Amino acid sequence: QPAHGLVRGAAIRGPAIQSFLAVRKRSEELAEGLSAEDCMVQSMPDASPIKWHLAHTSWFFETFVLAQAGADFRTFDPAYRMLFNSYYNGVGEMHPRSLRGVLSRPGLDEVRRYRAHIDQAIVALLERPCPPEWLALIELGINHEEQHQELILTDLKHHLWCNPLHPVYRAARPVAAHPAMDMQFCEYEGGKTRIGHAGDSFGFDNEQPAHTVWLQPFALGKRLVNNRDYLAFIEDGGYRQPEYWLSEGWERRRSENWQAPLYWQAPESAGQGWRIFTLSGDQPLRLDEPVCHLSYYEADAYARWCGARLPTEAEWEHAAQQAGTAREVFGGFMESGDFHPVPPPVTGAQPSQMFGEVWQWTASAYLPYPGFRTAAGAVGEYNGKFMINQMVLRGASCATPREHFRASYRNFFPPATRWQFAGLRLARDVLG
Amino acid sequence: QPAHGLVRGAAIRGPAIQSFLAVRKRSEELAEGLSAEDCMVQSMPDASPIKWHLAHTSWFFETFVLAQAGADFRTFDPAYRMLFNSYYNGVGEMHPRSLRGVLSRPGLDEVRRYRAHIDQAIVALLERPCPPEWLALIELGINHEEQHQELILTDLKHHLWCNPLHPVYRAARPVAAHPAMDMQFCEYEGGKTRIGHAGDSFGFDNEQPAHTVWLQPFALGKRLVNNRDYLAFIEDGGYRQPEYWLSEGWERRRSENWQAPLYWQAPESAGQGWRIFTLSGDQPLRLDEPVCHLSYYEADAYARWCGARLPTEAEWEHAAQQAGTAREVFGGFMESGDFHPVPPPVTGAQPSQMFGEVWQWTASAYLPYPGFRTAAGAVGEYNGKFMINQMVLRGASCATPREHFRASYRNFFPPATRWQFAGLRLARDVLG
Amino acid sequence: QPAHGLVRGAAIRGPAIQSFLAVRKRSEELAEGLSAEDCMVQSMPDASPIKWHLAHTSWFFETFVLAQAGADFRTFDPAYRMLFNSYYNGVGEMHPRSLRGVLSRPGLDEVRRYRAHIDQAIVALLERPCPPEWLALIELGINHEEQHQELILTDLKHHLWCNPLHPVYRAARPVAAHPAMDMQFCEYEGGKTRIGHAGDSFGFDNEQPAHTVWLQPFALGKRLVNNRDYLAFIEDGGYRQPEYWLSEGWERRRSENWQAPLYWQAPESAGQGWRIFTLSGDQPLRLDEPVCHLSYYEADAYARWCGARLPTEAEWEHAAQQAGTAREVFGGFMESGDFHPVPPPVTGAQPSQMFGEVWQWTASAYLPYPGFRTAAGAVGEYNGKFMINQMVLRGASCATPREHFRASYRNFFPPATRWQFAGLRLARDVLG
Amino acid sequence: QPAHGLVRGAAIRGPAIQSFLAVRKRSEELAEGLSAEDCMVQSMPDASPIKWHLAHTSWFFETFVLAQAGADFRTFDPAYRMLFNSYYNGVGEMHPRSLRGVLSRPGLDEVRRYRAHIDQAIVALLERPCPPEWLALIELGINHEEQHQELILTDLKHHLWCNPLHPVYRAARPVAAHPAMDMQFCEYEGGKTRIGHAGDSFGFDNEQPAHTVWLQPFALGKRLVNNRDYLAFIEDGGYRQPEYWLSEGWERRRSENWQAPLYWQAPESAGQGWRIFTLSGDQPLRLDEPVCHLSYYEADAYARWCGARLPTEAEWEHAAQQAGTAREVFGGFMESGDFHPVPPPVTGAQPSQMFGEVWQWTASAYLPYPGFRTAAGAVGEYNGKFMINQMVLRGASCATPREHFRASYRNFFPPATRWQFAGLRLARDVLG
Ligand SMILES: [Fe+3]
Ligand SMILES: [Fe+3]
Ligand SMILES: [Fe+3]
Ligand SMILES: [Fe+3]
Repeated sequence: QPAHGLVRGAAIRGPAIQSFLAVRKRSEELAEGLSAEDCMVQSMPDASPIKWHLAHTSWFFETFVLAQAGADFRTFDPAYRMLFNSYYNGVGEMHPRSLRGVLSRPGLDEVRRYRAHIDQAIVALLERPCPPEWLALIELGINHEEQHQELILTDLKHHLWCNPLHPVYRAARPVAAHPAMDMQFCEYEGGKTRIGHAGDSFGFDNEQPAHTVWLQPFALGKRLVNNRDYLAFIEDGGYRQPEYWLSEGWERRRSENWQAPLYWQAPESAGQGWRIFTLSGDQPLRLDEPVCHLSYYEADAYARWCGARLPTEAEWEHAAQQAGTAREVFGGFMESGDFHPVPPPVTGAQPSQMFGEVWQWTASAYLPYPGFRTAAGAVGEYNGKFMINQMVLRGASCATPREHFRASYRNFFPPATRWQFAGLRLARDVLG
Repeated sequence: QPAHGLVRGAAIRGPAIQSFLAVRKRSEELAEGLSAEDCMVQSMPDASPIKWHLAHTSWFFETFVLAQAGADFRTFDPAYRMLFNSYYNGVGEMHPRSLRGVLSRPGLDEVRRYRAHIDQAIVALLERPCPPEWLALIELGINHEEQHQELILTDLKHHLWCNPLHPVYRAARPVAAHPAMDMQFCEYEGGKTRIGHAGDSFGFDNEQPAHTVWLQPFALGKRLVNNRDYLAFIEDGGYRQPEYWLSEGWERRRSENWQAPLYWQAPESAGQGWRIFTLSGDQPLRLDEPVCHLSYYEADAYARWCGARLPTEAEWEHAAQQAGTAREVFGGFMESGDFHPVPPPVTGAQPSQMFGEVWQWTASAYLPYPGFRTAAGAVGEYNGKFMINQMVLRGASCATPREHFRASYRNFFPPATRWQFAGLRLARDVLG
Repeated sequence: QPAHGLVRGAAIRGPAIQSFLAVRKRSEELAEGLSAEDCMVQSMPDASPIKWHLAHTSWFFETFVLAQAGADFRTFDPAYRMLFNSYYNGVGEMHPRSLRGVLSRPGLDEVRRYRAHIDQAIVALLERPCPPEWLALIELGINHEEQHQELILTDLKHHLWCNPLHPVYRAARPVAAHPAMDMQFCEYEGGKTRIGHAGDSFGFDNEQPAHTVWLQPFALGKRLVNNRDYLAFIEDGGYRQPEYWLSEGWERRRSENWQAPLYWQAPESAGQGWRIFTLSGDQPLRLDEPVCHLSYYEADAYARWCGARLPTEAEWEHAAQQAGTAREVFGGFMESGDFHPVPPPVTGAQPSQMFGEVWQWTASAYLPYPGFRTAAGAVGEYNGKFMINQMVLRGASCATPREHFRASYRNFFPPATRWQFAGLRLARDVLG
Repeated sequence: QPAHGLVRGAAIRGPAIQSFLAVRKRSEELAEGLSAEDCMVQSMPDASPIKWHLAHTSWFFETFVLAQAGADFRTFDPAYRMLFNSYYNGVGEMHPRSLRGVLSRPGLDEVRRYRAHIDQAIVALLERPCPPEWLALIELGINHEEQHQELILTDLKHHLWCNPLHPVYRAARPVAAHPAMDMQFCEYEGGKTRIGHAGDSFGFDNEQPAHTVWLQPFALGKRLVNNRDYLAFIEDGGYRQPEYWLSEGWERRRSENWQAPLYWQAPESAGQGWRIFTLSGDQPLRLDEPVCHLSYYEADAYARWCGARLPTEAEWEHAAQQAGTAREVFGGFMESGDFHPVPPPVTGAQPSQMFGEVWQWTASAYLPYPGFRTAAGAVGEYNGKFMINQMVLRGASCATPREHFRASYRNFFPPATRWQFAGLRLARDVLG
């Protein structure tokens, strides 16, 4: 690395240290109030123990930054290279995903020491001039850890749900009363537009390159679909009639006996209402909240039932660009402390809660953008190798860190996924 | 139906009768030389017995035309409504797909009588003035039967492969000697273009509506990838290195122990060559033939290995529009009697074998076009409900009827599918 | 083989030829009235196509007799050695059991020619003096074919049931009116007794050697449990209460949603009665018939529900020895042409229908007798390697050939098996 | 309960309190040195977390003693009735077995408080005169907890094995040098003998009633099969040749790719030796140790390979009765602290290590003895409902508490089970 290629200015490296330490601290704050036992549960193969998330995010910095960066790094434990490798074949062997819950050793305390060890090493590295590649990888590691922060919350929610005691993670916060709102739509002319990430700020490889697309005229729901809307679908027999469903979705619904979104609990007797499990335990179902914990199949069936459809990701991103920073566009994020979607606060000119509360399933498959390139080496496995049989979600959720997302951000999950904070916004064709 | 809405002219109805009878006859010709036993094998849940195809295509005319068209139609056997329903929930119950091979009754002779019964009824219907809707549904039924003709051949091939005797369906035909050709590319400027089906000619709902898309500049291989190309991938360890593969593809490769395309047989000893099972039995592998019986995962891994990618369906369709009717564009179809891909005959200005020989996997997920609408009623289940977790294939194959396809035609299969005649054509980005 | 070891006497070889030809002819008679298509259905992995049974029983004579017996035997088709090998690792490779239904080639006609070829060769062999080992193996082959005759009927019944048309195999025969009979028991003192096969007559290896056992005093039901008895269990909630069931049985009941014996069809409305599918199609349920098509789990649960138990195989055999040849002891067999159990004709001193109508589940696991030895070579795989996780059934059924069984005969199936003609007889402890 | 039926004597109740407290303390000692995280791992559905064992054994006393015994018992937490119910349908719902590892709540500390709560209540109950039924149920609870102590060790061993770090539970203890010993046999005349539990001492229902059986003459190995013996089987290709195996065993071997007993690690290179995972971590394989962690299939295949067989449980029990209390008859138990089998110390007149070191697979299916009765109520589900598809093991192991077993004791597991401390002793027929 030629010396003139080093990032010498403390003006860059200083904020990087701050960002790094802030995200590292926040991960540990998420685990506050949880026992070592709580932090090692894996309730299904798709989910991971919190302790594993805490270690794996550190492994990421070790493997992709520290292990590359020079001879003076002392590894904390060589066995971790395999134990906390998630899916990078280029790094070598990995502990089987479905067995992450058996790792009582290292214990939570040991993992915390591992985190401190990595923290010190990264800070030490950033305190001296370093190549820009290292900074870029540290920024990737920060964004990576933010993604795992959301997974810590979704995995924990599933874990607590599997415990018949339905424990409370954080006490529920009061929600202001809110009037019901009809569904309205914003219209867009379509035509030539540009989506994707460009510029110097951070973006994942899968958001790049920015490129031109052509849109037909369309309309987008001004608010998210809420529980009241969705309950009408349930009560109209939506879960009993195949005509609204994709064929695979109907099969899944039947084989897993879906009758409502995940975490919904049907009334036990005539006089009672629906309840919903949250990170604050079981709660009455609030009708004006954005509906959440839907699979793509359910979101798609709901949209078909009401004569609409899901937006494509290009439509969604175009609308988000238009919406700019209008107040109503931003809902709540991880930092709100709700850990659960809340009703939209106001009606404005732009669609409300475009970001925050719930991820929004789009009608777009998760595929490479034209000109997509992966990074060289194992870190190139980050996103690209999952571009099949998944659908894109846009926006962000009540479990997403505030600084994590942007209009070009592409989240993605298989269509049967239900344990994420995922809901929907309707779209419609507009005849030109 | 108002009388003025009837199609009175024999000029339309006469050709419809001819088309109808021709396609019906061809299905039965495909079964020639096969025993009643041959016609009832179901070698895997994805495949169906030939007898079932013969009956189900008749069921389609009965259910969607004759049963709607009036009181004077006498059903052949009311049980067939359920027995030969493939997947139309709107029609009612259906015999389980995986148990199609247990239907020794009705026997093949009985199914032939059923076909004759339907043939007579459709011809009788067409001999009188009829509403245009009926004609449209008959045209749909003809296209439907053409699709099943290809499936008859692919399902039969899989069935004969499962029999250790590897029986011959049709004798092999000689193939002219052919020089090896380097891979060359055609370049396209991209920009605003229009894809999808429009106009009065027949097209499936999933090809519609025609609409504008925006393409980046790209290049497309002038010939299909052939066995020589693909063998280099195998010999370079392509099936042993995860770096070329999508994550799901690699898992599938491992769990099913793929070492080569379906139907390939590795050399048994050092001096011998690869062999390949065909509808003419086991044959030596011809290196200049388009490679075939690949999953999407394999096609995608091959493209990545050689630094290219698969084309999107819009790129492919745009190139096909440009190619027009140049001689080299058309390879062989079902009528050639080869039932196996053959090397490209000439090099011309346009990409060769755009249509015919093998379906070409594209990088596009099978999703609705903007403005997509399904037909009302059960027939609307034809295509739309499968728009998830499948990838689009374009072109046509050596098992596709000559008049079946067009540039806008969208074939689709899940990415792990291997028993179809599916290969690939490379694409590349062109820096603007 | 020393000349003095040859069986020279036509007095032995002549009857052997007769027995051989009779059993061979009977197998083909069972296929009469069935089409080639009917004969190639495999409705589940546990069942086999009739054509396969016809070929495999010939393969048995070829492999274990003709292929050993000398150079002048010409094989019909060398591929059959693998195609029709059921499970003999010592013979070499075998076609996968679950894919027996894909073998449209060889066709039924070809298999009939194969049978004729084997018939001629065996008769030719028996027309000359031959070593006693050959005679013994031919006798084994005859008994083997008789076993497959019963399987032809049980597999065919399952196959026809899977066809929603519920075709008729043989027309139903009238059954004489019959008064309901209370359940009575015969008592036995127990003590030292001897079970198992001894002497010169044919017996399978698993019935040998005869040996001493000690029995506690016990009682055995004088008749089989019938449909009236079993219906009371159903109506008392027997399929809804786990307390009567073995733990594994209850899991199976739940996962496969058993509500009644296999082939029973619940009343569709209040006024109607139960129906039952038979080889004569759907029929009203006759209450006085022995109950049939039970798994071990159901037989055991029924016995527990009524405060009794299943007999051990030693108890059963001891009682059968006592019963001798009393008229009531013998029910109907394959030759009756009923292919379905019929009510017991009379009450006598001995338990009725000890042999015939339905196999009787015993409380004994299928394990080797003390001193059990298998034959040398591949034929030793006949019985011994299946001695785990199966339960013994005694008696014989309406699908068993008349000359096939004896008091020491041990039939065996896994406890979840339902497609065999299997019912039960109660037993009770008697306090000494 | 009439007053004269009460057990008034402190001479009985005092020792009961001592036994109770001793067994309760020992369970907790087994968890010493383990973290709360270690105690909540469930490495497979067949195994349970140690915390669950600690809670469930308390649940047993609560459910079957305290909850019956009167109104003054205050439940610790009503949710535990469901959470820690293992399989008693008569008690009500139960938490799914495969999800025992998700129960981070209650935490280990809470479970320890639960144990103390139950301990106090049982002691309080025993400090007053009580009906003999209560004493009997407490004795059952003590024996139940002893069974779970062994499971704590076998489940922990499997859990530590699944962690690639292969942690050490207890440091290895030195083993005295030991000469290799040939295999010798003891002969038994057979004839009429009596097995099963009788008398006033404790025995499980499945060991009762004592009853007469008749044995053929037989011989029993004077020592257990050891690693040297078993290695010869491996080296002779025992895991590559189906002829030694039961058919189901061979399928299992193939599908799970067994190449050696569980926990054996093949030499990594030519110069190295086999290693074995133990509760003291990875260790060199000691050849004179009894072979352990075999499935029934492997034990049976080994016996067949060396021309012998497994003993029946009646043969084994008869030999154990003869052996009496000779010194060599007793190997090591849980209290030895080895937690791993050790070589036999001496050769005596009687078979060595009949009890201790490893459970011995017998050739007997786990079925009811003649006259077997279950207790009334839910506690009757303890043993009886598992009497299908399992094989009996006799003796005891290095993980069995010293006072837990007896000659009539019947342990049982499905034949594919490998994670128990199970080995074998050979038997042979003796010609009379
Ligand atoms: Fe990660
Ligand atoms: Fe179709
Ligand atoms: Fe057989
Ligand atoms: Fe227990």
